[in-house]
Amino acid sequence: MTAPRRNERSRRAILAAALELLSETSYPDLTIEAIAARAGVGKQTIYRWWRSKGMVILEALVDSAGEPGDMALPDTGDLRADLRTVLRATVAEFADPRLSATTRAITIETLADDDLAEQVRDQLLRPQLSAVRERLRAGRRAGQVHESVDLDLAVELLFGPIYHRWLLRNGPLTEAYADDLVDLAMAAMAPGRSRLEAAP
Amino acid sequence: MTAPRRNERSRRAILAAALELLSETSYPDLTIEAIAARAGVGKQTIYRWWRSKGMVILEALVDSAGEPGDMALPDTGDLRADLRTVLRATVAEFADPRLSATTRAITIETLADDDLAEQVRDQLLRPQLSAVRERLRAGRRAGQVHESVDLDLAVELLFGPIYHRWLLRNGPLTEAYADDLVDLAMAAMAPGRSRLEAAP
Repeated sequence: MTAPRRNERSRRAILAAALELLSETSYPDLTIEAIAARAGVGKQTIYRWWRSKGMVILEALVDSAGEPGDMALPDTGDLRADLRTVLRATVAEFADPRLSATTRAITIETLADDDLAEQVRDQLLRPQLSAVRERLRAGRRAGQVHESVDLDLAVELLFGPIYHRWLLRNGPLTEAYADDLVDLAMAAMAPGRSRLEAAP
Repeated sequence: MTAPRRNERSRRAILAAALELLSETSYPDLTIEAIAARAGVGKQTIYRWWRSKGMVILEALVDSAGEPGDMALPDTGDLRADLRTVLRATVAEFADPRLSATTRAITIETLADDDLAEQVRDQLLRPQLSAVRERLRAGRRAGQVHESVDLDLAVELLFGPIYHRWLLRNGPLTEAYADDLVDLAMAAMAPGRSRLEAAP
């Protein structure tokens, strides 16, 4: 199926309306009708361009996240400090009731919709995770990360526990938690110890 | 509200029917009606005793998991080998299409239902995670885990990346992945290196 041609001004109005409404109401209460009314378009326009509410929100979030290049992590030369900055921000997002409600709703939709899941992963999450991986790569060049560490796995070691704790509501999501997690992950990646012990 | 009194024989028949049907059909296609028919009870009986399909399945899974004591990990004295055993089994569950579909459905329901989330966490997941934590505690007593490591965080370091990869469908869920994850987590927990570097 060919995607229907979109009017860029309407598209921007719709995405801006979606984000505005998302900050005013909860995701489950957010309707296509309300987005259309706020954007000053007919709701059929939205249904023509997007398959579901989840797809509208995804595109709004992707647009507001900016270009992948904008997501580059700070590189102060201090890997631990830079990772703390990004993990504290991530933990704060998951701890924020409104942002968490949006993430929960998007997660539910992605668990139920393979196509949306793929787009969320490729357009929203991978650029963020790649930015962290590139910061780790710079850290490896600077001798702060062991050569043998799989950087994709290292990224999962940093973010996986946060998702796990958030999903299971299994403990507080605090700055101290973010810092402890960075310390433990840094210990896993440390160049100082022999990797021979880790061999099978 | 007082929970209606349950007939133990009917309860067992219903839970057994639920698990049987879950192995024959997908979770979304599983209905209360089908469970009632298989168990030989009226569907009103099920509605009277459980609030939702998710609650029936949860109780069936909890019952089939056995007593918390049954979940204790093997302790061969080789912490790495024991963790590999449990992580390989966990990764295999997430990689299995049918089990994964059930986990996905339960996850969706828990994201949408706080009460179910609490029960899944307390009755199903915490006993499993506690079993791993107790194995790590034994490892610490045996000098294989650094004194300063927060064991709850260490458990999240082992399971969080698996959930993350499964949720994001961001890479293969294989034995090699389980083993690499154990190695990286073991490096994080290793007693051999100074924790002073990890201080703020």
